Formats: sequence, C-alpha cells, structure tokens
Amino acid sequence: MFVSFEGGDGSGKSTQAKLLVESLRTQGLDVIHTREPGGSTGAEEIRGLILSGEPDRWSPETELLLFNAARRDHLEKTIIPALERGAIVVSDRFADSTRVYQGVTRGDLRGLVDSLHTLMIGKEPDLTIVMKMPADEALRRGMSRNTTALESEGVDEGRFELFGLDFQKKLTAGFDALTDEFPDRCVGVDASGSIEEVAERVMTAYLNHEAARLSQMTP
Amino acid sequence: MFVSFEGGDGSGKSTQAKLLVESLRTQGLDVIHTREPGGSTGAEEIRGLILSGEPDRWSPETELLLFNAARRDHLEKTIIPALERGAIVVSDRFADSTRVYQGVTRGDLRGLVDSLHTLMIGKEPDLTIVMKMPADEALRRGMSRNTTALESEGVDEGRFELFGLDFQKKLTAGFDALTDEFPDRCVGVDASGSIEEVAERVMTAYLNHEAARLSQMTP
Repeated sequence: MFVSFEGGDGSGKSTQAKLLVESLRTQGLDVIHTREPGGSTGAEEIRGLILSGEPDRWSPETELLLFNAARRDHLEKTIIPALERGAIVVSDRFADSTRVYQGVTRGDLRGLVDSLHTLMIGKEPDLTIVMKMPADEALRRGMSRNTTALESEGVDEGRFELFGLDFQKKLTAGFDALTDEFPDRCVGVDASGSIEEVAERVMTAYLNHEAARLSQMTP
Repeated sequence: MFVSFEGGDGSGKSTQAKLLVESLRTQGLDVIHTREPGGSTGAEEIRGLILSGEPDRWSPETELLLFNAARRDHLEKTIIPALERGAIVVSDRFADSTRVYQGVTRGDLRGLVDSLHTLMIGKEPDLTIVMKMPADEALRRGMSRNTTALESEGVDEGRFELFGLDFQKKLTAGFDALTDEFPDRCVGVDASGSIEEVAERVMTAYLNHEAARLSQMTP
C-alpha cells in the first residue's frame, strides 16, 4: 500500500502524514514515512539543489528533470524495497506535486510532465490524500511556517511561496483538479479545523479506500 | 557554429578542445570554451553530484536524468546565448557522451537515452570531433591523469575509469560507432602521436567542415 499526501505548503499535509504514520504504527503495522523531493540519500542531495537559491535559478524544464531524478532515486532506494517487503509507504508529496507545480503554474508544461513521468517513473500511489484549503489561508500558513524555518534553521526552503497569492490560487485549483482527473486514487480531504478533526477525516479516507480494496480482492 | 569533442577519458580531447579554442581566438573569433557535465553555474553543481562518490551511487536511469538536467541548464544558460550572439561554442563533451556511456556500457538503455534527449534537449552540435584511440592506451592515460588529479586537487572525478579495461573497450567501440551513426556531423580524428600532430588533424577536420558548410550556403 503506497499512500501520498498532496496539497499546497501550509495545507497541513506534513502534519497529517506524520499522524497517519503514527496511528498505523500503533496498530503494529510496518510503515515507512518518507517525503519528496527527497526520501533517499541521493534524492535529499538533489532536493538541496532544487529548493535553495533564487526562484528562477532553474528553468521549469531543468527543474522538472531534477525532480524526476530525485523521484527515480527515491522510488528505487526507498519506496520499491519497502513495498516489496510488504510495508505501507506514506509519502509527503509524490508525482502529483510535479503535475501541479510544474504543469499548472509554470508555463504550459503538463504534456512534458506526463511524457517524462511515463518514460522515467511510471508509478502511482494506491491512494492520494489531497488536502483542500482556500488559497489565502494556505498562503498565510505557508508564510508563517517559512518565517519560522528561516529563523530556526537559517534555511530557506520556501521559495515557491515567494510567488504570492496568485500562485497559491493556481496551486489550489491544480490540486483540486487532481481528484477529478484521478478519481480512483485521489481523495479530497477538508483541511480546515483542528489537527485532530482533520486527522479523523484522513483516517476515514484511508479506511474507506482500504475497505474498497479488500472488497475488490474478494469478489 | 557549435563544436563538441568526444572520446574516452585520456583520449586527449580536453587538451585538443583547448588548443582549437586558442587557435580560433588568435584569428580574432568570439569563442566560448565549455564542457559537460557542467558548463554553467547550475550544471557544475549537478556535475558535483554525478561525478563524486561510489560508482554505483546512482542507477543508470537516475544518472541519465541528472546528466539531462545539467545539459538543459548548460544549453539554456551558456550554449544558446553564445550561439545567438554569433559566437563559436566549443564543448568538451555533449549528448554523444551520454549515448556512449549510459547507452552502450550500462545496460541496454540507448532507447531511453534517445527518448529523453528528444523530449528534453533536442539539440545537436554542428560538428563533433571524435578522438580515436585504442582502449588500453586510453585506459593508461586516463589512470595516470586521475592519479595526478587526486594528488593535486584531492578530488576524484575518475569513477568511470574504475570499471577497468573491459569498460574502456566498450567505450572505444561506442565512440567509434558515432561516426557511422551521425556521418554528417561526426568526424573521427586519430588521437595518437604528439599533441601538435593531433591538433593539426583537428584543425583540418574543423576547416573541412567549415568549407563544406560554406559551399552548402552558396549553391
């Protein structure tokens, strides 16, 4: 079982991915908690190249190649070995983030995104939790988070937020579109309310999907 | 005019690229001397990721994506702007190196190499000088060069040589095949003899190609 969390920065997906992992582990399940870009030694190094520096440091096409290099390493070194030994993999972002960030918001590159994904990755999660939140609320949360990260770590991983509210609106629309495009695996979850409320919605989505999977296995 | 030099490590291509650049500059021409992987700020950083560490650090597929990311940046930031202002670009390696190293020697990935190149790069040099040298001689030169680099710079960029003589033989055959596959732009140059003798052969190949180009322009 391969689960990914998608949504804009500030949508709470990292927190919710962590809570789902903890909850499944208390049930005695073998769960790998990972993230993109990154998730393996090599991919984390590529992440450093992608997320630091000026917003226009890489062209959309070069960035797309770097994301796919990181994803390929992540898939080979972390995700596939875990799935093969029967573990559950929970990833904070996967290929849908590239579809939305590079495909929707930085030029009309969606065709290129899909071609490259088919050629070099060719793997989708079984379940994708899409965190749904209004753009202005996501921007406010993302800004606050990045200011904290800057102060505490001296690292700016927030360059995507620099694009502002208009960018966040396009992102929100892009993530919303995922549930229409991939209805079999993408489930939208309302990201408003307390952490506990959202966690309950996430667990419901997970259990519903698991039940649907099991019913398919026993005709 | 976009010229690339190809050949195994130790074939003398870097020395010859440098001599061609100097010779064209003494004629008052605007010449950019560049190299791959690298050739732009971003691509040089990706080069660092690719060439350091253990030989099996990256899978052939991940390595292929990294080489293409570096090449895309190199093309956008260095090669295209130079060609657009009318300069001659001389690059120590370009896409043919990927065809040979990843396509011929590390699994049967040539199809993938070509698909990715078409999708993300789509540019070829006008002239490619292929340095021809027997495998055992190239290995001996490459080994000696890397030992020197290690001692003087403390940097090991020679991990490809670690694969040994058998690898060098496959490389030699791969580079030889380029002149058959792309006869319009690839010219084989005998890399044996003194530096001056080889430089004369390179200049002859350059001038012949330039003459052929000019004769095509004036029907």
